[in-house]
Amino acid sequence: MNEQNPIFILGPTNIPDRIRNAMNKQTVDHRSPKFSELFMSVLSDLKTVFKTARGTVLAFPSTGTGGWEAALQNTLDPGDRVLAARHGVFSHRWIDMCQRHGLEVDVIDCAWGSPAPAELFAERLENDKQGTIKAVLVTHNETATGVRSDILAVRKAIDKAGHSALLLVDGVSSIASMDFQMDAWGVDIAVTGSQKGFMLPAGLGIVAVSERAIEIAKTKKTARCFFDFPEMLKANQAGGYPYTPALQHFYGLRESLDMLLEEGLDQVFARHRRAADAVRAAVAGWGLSLCSTSAPHHSDTVSAIYVPPGVDSNMLTDLALRKYGVSFGIGLGQMTGKAFRIGHLGSITDTMILGGLATLEMAMSELAYPVKLGSGTTAAQKVFVGRP
Amino acid sequence: MNEQNPIFILGPTNIPDRIRNAMNKQTVDHRSPKFSELFMSVLSDLKTVFKTARGTVLAFPSTGTGGWEAALQNTLDPGDRVLAARHGVFSHRWIDMCQRHGLEVDVIDCAWGSPAPAELFAERLENDKQGTIKAVLVTHNETATGVRSDILAVRKAIDKAGHSALLLVDGVSSIASMDFQMDAWGVDIAVTGSQKGFMLPAGLGIVAVSERAIEIAKTKKTARCFFDFPEMLKANQAGGYPYTPALQHFYGLRESLDMLLEEGLDQVFARHRRAADAVRAAVAGWGLSLCSTSAPHHSDTVSAIYVPPGVDSNMLTDLALRKYGVSFGIGLGQMTGKAFRIGHLGSITDTMILGGLATLEMAMSELAYPVKLGSGTTAAQKVFVGRP
Amino acid sequence: MNEQNPIFILGPTNIPDRIRNAMNKQTVDHRSPKFSELFMSVLSDLKTVFKTARGTVLAFPSTGTGGWEAALQNTLDPGDRVLAARHGVFSHRWIDMCQRHGLEVDVIDCAWGSPAPAELFAERLENDKQGTIKAVLVTHNETATGVRSDILAVRKAIDKAGHSALLLVDGVSSIASMDFQMDAWGVDIAVTGSQKGFMLPAGLGIVAVSERAIEIAKTKKTARCFFDFPEMLKANQAGGYPYTPALQHFYGLRESLDMLLEEGLDQVFARHRRAADAVRAAVAGWGLSLCSTSAPHHSDTVSAIYVPPGVDSNMLTDLALRKYGVSFGIGLGQMTGKAFRIGHLGSITDTMILGGLATLEMAMSELAYPVKLGSGTTAAQKVFVGRP
Amino acid sequence: MNEQNPIFILGPTNIPDRIRNAMNKQTVDHRSPKFSELFMSVLSDLKTVFKTARGTVLAFPSTGTGGWEAALQNTLDPGDRVLAARHGVFSHRWIDMCQRHGLEVDVIDCAWGSPAPAELFAERLENDKQGTIKAVLVTHNETATGVRSDILAVRKAIDKAGHSALLLVDGVSSIASMDFQMDAWGVDIAVTGSQKGFMLPAGLGIVAVSERAIEIAKTKKTARCFFDFPEMLKANQAGGYPYTPALQHFYGLRESLDMLLEEGLDQVFARHRRAADAVRAAVAGWGLSLCSTSAPHHSDTVSAIYVPPGVDSNMLTDLALRKYGVSFGIGLGQMTGKAFRIGHLGSITDTMILGGLATLEMAMSELAYPVKLGSGTTAAQKVFVGRP
Repeated sequence: MNEQNPIFILGPTNIPDRIRNAMNKQTVDHRSPKFSELFMSVLSDLKTVFKTARGTVLAFPSTGTGGWEAALQNTLDPGDRVLAARHGVFSHRWIDMCQRHGLEVDVIDCAWGSPAPAELFAERLENDKQGTIKAVLVTHNETATGVRSDILAVRKAIDKAGHSALLLVDGVSSIASMDFQMDAWGVDIAVTGSQKGFMLPAGLGIVAVSERAIEIAKTKKTARCFFDFPEMLKANQAGGYPYTPALQHFYGLRESLDMLLEEGLDQVFARHRRAADAVRAAVAGWGLSLCSTSAPHHSDTVSAIYVPPGVDSNMLTDLALRKYGVSFGIGLGQMTGKAFRIGHLGSITDTMILGGLATLEMAMSELAYPVKLGSGTTAAQKVFVGRP
Repeated sequence: MNEQNPIFILGPTNIPDRIRNAMNKQTVDHRSPKFSELFMSVLSDLKTVFKTARGTVLAFPSTGTGGWEAALQNTLDPGDRVLAARHGVFSHRWIDMCQRHGLEVDVIDCAWGSPAPAELFAERLENDKQGTIKAVLVTHNETATGVRSDILAVRKAIDKAGHSALLLVDGVSSIASMDFQMDAWGVDIAVTGSQKGFMLPAGLGIVAVSERAIEIAKTKKTARCFFDFPEMLKANQAGGYPYTPALQHFYGLRESLDMLLEEGLDQVFARHRRAADAVRAAVAGWGLSLCSTSAPHHSDTVSAIYVPPGVDSNMLTDLALRKYGVSFGIGLGQMTGKAFRIGHLGSITDTMILGGLATLEMAMSELAYPVKLGSGTTAAQKVFVGRP
Repeated sequence: MNEQNPIFILGPTNIPDRIRNAMNKQTVDHRSPKFSELFMSVLSDLKTVFKTARGTVLAFPSTGTGGWEAALQNTLDPGDRVLAARHGVFSHRWIDMCQRHGLEVDVIDCAWGSPAPAELFAERLENDKQGTIKAVLVTHNETATGVRSDILAVRKAIDKAGHSALLLVDGVSSIASMDFQMDAWGVDIAVTGSQKGFMLPAGLGIVAVSERAIEIAKTKKTARCFFDFPEMLKANQAGGYPYTPALQHFYGLRESLDMLLEEGLDQVFARHRRAADAVRAAVAGWGLSLCSTSAPHHSDTVSAIYVPPGVDSNMLTDLALRKYGVSFGIGLGQMTGKAFRIGHLGSITDTMILGGLATLEMAMSELAYPVKLGSGTTAAQKVFVGRP
Repeated sequence: MNEQNPIFILGPTNIPDRIRNAMNKQTVDHRSPKFSELFMSVLSDLKTVFKTARGTVLAFPSTGTGGWEAALQNTLDPGDRVLAARHGVFSHRWIDMCQRHGLEVDVIDCAWGSPAPAELFAERLENDKQGTIKAVLVTHNETATGVRSDILAVRKAIDKAGHSALLLVDGVSSIASMDFQMDAWGVDIAVTGSQKGFMLPAGLGIVAVSERAIEIAKTKKTARCFFDFPEMLKANQAGGYPYTPALQHFYGLRESLDMLLEEGLDQVFARHRRAADAVRAAVAGWGLSLCSTSAPHHSDTVSAIYVPPGVDSNMLTDLALRKYGVSFGIGLGQMTGKAFRIGHLGSITDTMILGGLATLEMAMSELAYPVKLGSGTTAAQKVFVGRP
């Protein structure tokens, strides 16, 4: 029966029935007007979610990782210098990708648990009078640590330095769950995937691109076809796709956008905030600590939580899965064995969260954590009770 | 997002994905050998669930109510005398149906919350030296009160009186979730529906019939076609159906039987017992009372719970649904406004139950019940933690 | 791969994806306002399809057979005299059901292939000066022979005789596919099922009832509960159901009604007429004969076709299924072995029909029928080509 | 109702219900043993389909185009020389991709409709004594022209020349539908997608890689992450994935492999051959010509068909879609307006094909093609009738 349990990994997230049914669709001709109409409406509403009027959204049959690679291939050349902070596994992976693409990465290593350091970015950019830094890379929400960085602060740092670097943002685990303002924050490329806030299965890398980034992509000679922005853009503008689209994913995305816009983005964000508040209350109730060290930067989509010293967090997630059939996120990178993670994003309700927290408590109890049964769940209830 | 919440009404119950997918099937010819093979395997495995080797299982496109009516039409004549206890809404409804069929019902009224009174049955049967009582009707599990009656005790009462009355049992909310032993308990007709322990949508009335009841049905002249046992039996024996079968339900029932038999009936029953124990622990933790007054007769599939004096239980179930999107059973009949009910049957996990209990607590708290947040959920956790 | 083939039995019919997805729905509380709203809209739109403003539509978890039985139980008493024609298996079955319900049936036996004889009805009714005939039973579309009877003519016969008999109509294989005008034709009860023109799986018996029939039902004392009109009506009027509804079927029916009303009933009927014309052209092309002997009475939903003398029609349907994986209707009753049937109702397209006809031709050819490959399919193409 | 029609584009192909249901699956943890087990079994059975014991199969969330790019990125460096024939849109696109990756392509232009010229390849390779040609690129099945090339002949040409060039094959529209023997034909990389012979939605690029190609990939420094073979291989060998897998596609692929292996690859190929023979018979019956000019090279998965001079093939495909709701492939590249295409691959039956051919005939007739109604369909029937 465990297949009916909610899932608390960091994505893919629980897929609502509406989306599953929308995707359970027989093949239709992707060269027919019907597809074109659907697809155009999806691209248009995606702009609403990214909060961009001037940018363009492209969707590749891939994942967030593919989206990152697309961003690099279309705007940077081997040897280009980029600036990035490393403060978790996902920011680390992006740096690694840059290096594999022959980019020279100025890495700012920060404590895991802290956000991207806008001030240090500012400093480096101000020192780069020749403008050798071509792009600043920021992970909006570090999925490994549950930390949200302040993208607007980074934009201000760039502007203050009078610098021309592009601002590339990984919004994989934030977009459609937490506020993201592409235009207002001056983001040049924002990347996400279908399997987080959009509540779909994995399979789409979704990339929003500023006018400037599009112009750069048009002149860029790096070897690429699959992820080529100009080719995708040209096909999209004609209502089509440069190769076979992942049709069912677009039907699912149509339904997802309907759900998000029916609920209202502000309500969606508030719901995630409330879920996060409840989980954070539970963590405090347990007497455990978040990896995220600064309250204003706590993520609303994921909480990474340190286990007590001397125990292995993987035993906790294993037990929760084996005995209770519930999956939670494991600690990644530096946090392997030291932390576990609770995903609280996408299609998730108060009741599902309380069930998950209560389950974790039971597993902690069986592993003799110094955690009292009910201490976290009750704290979370108090948060939910207070809501309208 | 609330559509993803588990449901705690008393049926229909949560439908597992395996069953939903098995039922999501295009039409096939119900006169083809493929249907025949599937259908025969279903009827055969249903016997395993009813624990009958000598009886026959019939499945009508209807509901439990239709199954009851089928039982009456096929074995009793207007004017026949039957014996029944009234101790809840569902036993009451059965009595009402008998009366509408022109049967003379000896009603034994018992306190709601108590089981069917085998001793009083014994007394009446012993006094009926002429054998004018043609059938004894027992509700195995009173869904309105959460009380399980002892069918074997009723059988012993009949036997001790040397009486020939048929033993007709409503097993709608027990069969496939709690132990039911048709042959060992000498049951003549047992009725259930598809939407409880079998975890399907409503749409099938499932009736197991003893050899003796079949023989009676063959001679019975009451006006009936749709629910006629001999006609259904004859068609079934030829691998077919007397009219158009509810095909998708049989595909779903095949999957349901696979799930039940893979898990093992004993494990299924133990799982329901554990869920019930956890809910009962929560009720105690809340300081509330079960409607069921005798611990050995507490139901493992449903708990009916009195709210504190002076409050309306419907406000509780309304709030849980309106604010948290979770449905619980309301109080029925005498218990309207005085009790609510938690269904803990079918496809339900520890985590789902804890989420449900925590949700109820929040709603109670908002309605100013004298119930402490966490008091019930934590008590339930203690039950689950102890399991293997 | 054969599961992807269309099906040409007489129901259940091909289920469109829209309906399958609408039915693939998790349990929701049937006592919640959401169900009530859905259910009321379904009952209301059903009236549009039955073309009744004054009547009431009731839907029972059963089948067309259950619907027939409901009609008898609620309006007639044992010993009552009814008038019916027998001209196919389904009209025969209804007569048989009447007899099992203790009704006295005046049977008018007609040649199979002919419609219900309005003139003979008129004669009998005129001779019944005492009004002992309580009801006239007519099968609108004899599914066994592919013959549509003229219900309005029967109504006129009743009126001309100044007779008060009720007019009960089996519209199982006509309603929602061929024009049916409950009010204009003065029908008292019209019965259908979910698995024909409504394109759902079997599982609902749908019954439209005139004001007069409702009044009669309220006073009728026959033994019944499950199919009791007044109880169902009372529950429906309160937005609910007297027992557990087959929820998923109502979601499917909602979608079905949307599809029918979006297309427009006239367009739906025209589509069925065209399909029927094409099949009839094919039959002529093959040099075979319809069972239906009178062109104005040819059914638009099913064609029953005689095979050449000396061959067994079951060999044809068997071969089509075994070799090509396509199911057609077999000959029933008198026509067993002598005729096969093609269902052309519900969700079926020109292309599907041409595929079916071409398949039949191949099977005929292999069985050495004197039928030329292409002779029927091409004739059908000519019909379709001509359409707008 | 047209959504129920089969589809005859060249992919995505009709998705069987078994696969749709297998994919309609809630999220599970892709780091759990359950995923690992499923995934390993899929990769293993894919080897059976590619007929490789020594090679490795990798599956990327992308499409066939992504698979091609992966092949280039992992085995070739900018400036490398490759040899390729251009004889259709898809071979053209591959050449274009090579050029965009900075490869120097020796293009052999052939008539569209002819296969890849093994003799000309041989000649070029023999002249390349220094071994500057690093790879030979062949499109096994030109989807634009319906031509199958002889891969073994190309392998023999390479071997005869004693050349070390890699053999890279586009098997997008052949693999799993026509025989493909990776090991026996000495193929180094074979590329396909999920949406053709595997009958899934688009979303996976599937790439089989020889031991030698894997070794080359390990040393290759080209900029890549998403499509990196060594990283994917390493993750796969540990039972996992380097990023989020398209989970539902793997569930679908598991079902697809079950279907293919249950039927037997030889039977699958024979079924496609028969479908192709029937379509070719229809083309002859119509008096039209295939684009493919050499019978031994006619494709078994797609037929490209010239329309009569002076008419526009797009009007034909438009009319078939608009009036009859059936999609066929349009002419591509040089063949735009001059040819249409019929896909006869994947989940398709004799009956579906006959329906499709009959529909085309009707549309041709309405456009006043000199084609007789029935002339093609009947010819196709003759092919199907003859089969066992």
